[in-house]
Amino acid sequence: MPASMLLTNVRPAGGPTTTVLVRDGRIAVVGKGAKADSVDVVDAGGALMLPGLVEAHTHLDKTLYGMAWYRNEVGPRLIDKIDNERAMKKKLGIDPARQSARQVVLSVGHGTTHIRTHVDVDTEVGLAGIEGVMRTRERYRNIIDIEIVAFPQSGLLVRPGTVELMEEALKMGAEVVGGLDPSGIDRDPKGHLDAIFGLAERHGRPLDIHLHEAGELGAFAVELTIERTKVLGMQGRVTLSHAFCLGMPDPVAVGALIDGLAEAGIHVMTTGPASRPAPPVKRLVEAGITVCSGNDGIRDTWGPYGNGDMLERAMFVGLRNNLRRDDELELALDVCTHGGARVMALADYGLEPGCRADFVLVDAETVAEAVAGRPPRKLVVKNGRIVARDGRAIVEAP
Amino acid sequence: MPASMLLTNVRPAGGPTTTVLVRDGRIAVVGKGAKADSVDVVDAGGALMLPGLVEAHTHLDKTLYGMAWYRNEVGPRLIDKIDNERAMKKKLGIDPARQSARQVVLSVGHGTTHIRTHVDVDTEVGLAGIEGVMRTRERYRNIIDIEIVAFPQSGLLVRPGTVELMEEALKMGAEVVGGLDPSGIDRDPKGHLDAIFGLAERHGRPLDIHLHEAGELGAFAVELTIERTKVLGMQGRVTLSHAFCLGMPDPVAVGALIDGLAEAGIHVMTTGPASRPAPPVKRLVEAGITVCSGNDGIRDTWGPYGNGDMLERAMFVGLRNNLRRDDELELALDVCTHGGARVMALADYGLEPGCRADFVLVDAETVAEAVAGRPPRKLVVKNGRIVARDGRAIVEAP
Repeated sequence: MPASMLLTNVRPAGGPTTTVLVRDGRIAVVGKGAKADSVDVVDAGGALMLPGLVEAHTHLDKTLYGMAWYRNEVGPRLIDKIDNERAMKKKLGIDPARQSARQVVLSVGHGTTHIRTHVDVDTEVGLAGIEGVMRTRERYRNIIDIEIVAFPQSGLLVRPGTVELMEEALKMGAEVVGGLDPSGIDRDPKGHLDAIFGLAERHGRPLDIHLHEAGELGAFAVELTIERTKVLGMQGRVTLSHAFCLGMPDPVAVGALIDGLAEAGIHVMTTGPASRPAPPVKRLVEAGITVCSGNDGIRDTWGPYGNGDMLERAMFVGLRNNLRRDDELELALDVCTHGGARVMALADYGLEPGCRADFVLVDAETVAEAVAGRPPRKLVVKNGRIVARDGRAIVEAP
Repeated sequence: MPASMLLTNVRPAGGPTTTVLVRDGRIAVVGKGAKADSVDVVDAGGALMLPGLVEAHTHLDKTLYGMAWYRNEVGPRLIDKIDNERAMKKKLGIDPARQSARQVVLSVGHGTTHIRTHVDVDTEVGLAGIEGVMRTRERYRNIIDIEIVAFPQSGLLVRPGTVELMEEALKMGAEVVGGLDPSGIDRDPKGHLDAIFGLAERHGRPLDIHLHEAGELGAFAVELTIERTKVLGMQGRVTLSHAFCLGMPDPVAVGALIDGLAEAGIHVMTTGPASRPAPPVKRLVEAGITVCSGNDGIRDTWGPYGNGDMLERAMFVGLRNNLRRDDELELALDVCTHGGARVMALADYGLEPGCRADFVLVDAETVAEAVAGRPPRKLVVKNGRIVARDGRAIVEAP
């Protein structure tokens, strides 16, 4: 199948109905001049065309999706969930290659064309997670792009040997250095941040730090992150994931953090969590900060929720941030598309001529309706080729 | 079609596979003794059987579902939304009979068997909303039960004539007296609450009060409501909807309110709102308070969200309250089934022999999976008759 097609009767980003020519895996012409130049013609039936959805934060290696239902009886603390998960990986036989493949196929069906996944690296699982997800990445390389964050889920300094494993993961093919709650888990904010910034500097890699720490403790970690980002010239290459502390009630403190993040060019990832303080998305975007989103863990030992749908995630971001106006829902979608693309530094992303032909068609009148209604994806195109129809990927999961 | 059937290969509430005999619109036998006594046999294929979902708070009269997409450009205040809505009812031609019918058919497809709907009564729309929803109630009386709250959406005392219209609505067929933000809208908490409790007392009706007022202002309204409920002996017949003030950060103040509500037998309705303080569902239930839920407005001039699915609403309640364990997700479903049934004082509700045969079949291993995954409703039965299959009602919407 050639990576070319002529899409007729389509509305890019909810604009007027037009014609789009895809040639050699790229959007070649939009509107006048888009002709059926010996390529397949696909009548979009008036569908809305959105850029490929960007899942900028998930954990492909440890979803239980497709396995027997896991009865969750885990304790309430963060460390309960981390310890339980390490034990369950063995007990349940969570195979990273198989499970990541299942989630990827699910995501493709929902129109996701790019994924940034955090993959556990620790002294028990070693690099098995990285290896498994790399096999999945290779297997599905023609239908989705996957970026891997080497993620010290069980702590970095508290588990000697983990830094070395992280180095190894980066050499194997992980692109991004991960970090996690420098005070809450490693009990040493300076030590943890110096270690991960050191890894990032030595290997010339971006950073993505899970920061669940709330209130002033989280704010302190944000300050330390801003300082290091500026000193090392890493502006535009550092992401804070979750950043619950940006949802703390002190508007003056939050304002200062937002200013600092904007100045240091640090990105923020939020899932739009309903039960936690959360970064105020509109304010961040207005301050010039790039905000992305992701589904986080899907049906895993941490929690039962999630289906891999980034349009549903845009809805969650909207609901959490009380976004009701159409322009606000368009912002929520932007977070789940262009925001993620900027965080992952994707080249040629979008619906303009010259961009990679990564896009999604849905039956919806407007972008706002697509977010609120989450209609099934009619067609998903990756690199100019159809990879999913009517909500289902054209490939099978293991 | 007789209101009788033999369901084989079914798992009530996720328990062991069994057989259920439905006869004359009721669950007659569960397990041994359930035989095909000249009735239709329906093989449930191992599906989970849940009691009919209870939508205990919505606004049937003003959904825009099925109409052209409404571009929301409304201001941020509560009064902006109220004023805009009154204007849009005329401008867009929101017909209460047609629109309520559309939402009802959608809800039936999602397995809702009972609805409590608040219907606007004001000096502009008059009783047109009540009349329209009553027509819908009559039209679909065999497939769903609808209870009507006469709701003074635009204020009671600030709009002279509204009390009289409320009286009229109750005489016409509305069962419940509604109230709304006694300070925020009517600017007179004592006056508003005296008026609606007076209506309830004179007509011998239950009360359901929209209380968006947050923090101490809301807490004051809760106190006044508790006082009146006890004095008038209305325990078990008063519901506070939304009750955002129960999510305020002061645990001592919230504890006192919860104790007071429990003592007065006042119910609480929460949608599990992601962007607002919210009643802590587990704590309320542990204190003995009946908690119910609802989808509130579905795709209306207030906001674009909602699809009428009470399993999705159970998920929202779970997400908002950080419910992750299986027993916690079972609680979320209980809120959307038995909780609503208690608030609406439904007789013979449940899956036990003798109960009305109002139930839903879904393909899910466990109740928790049904809540987290929201699978399409395989079969919906009301009064012993099939009213929806595979997510679609057997009747058409106008």
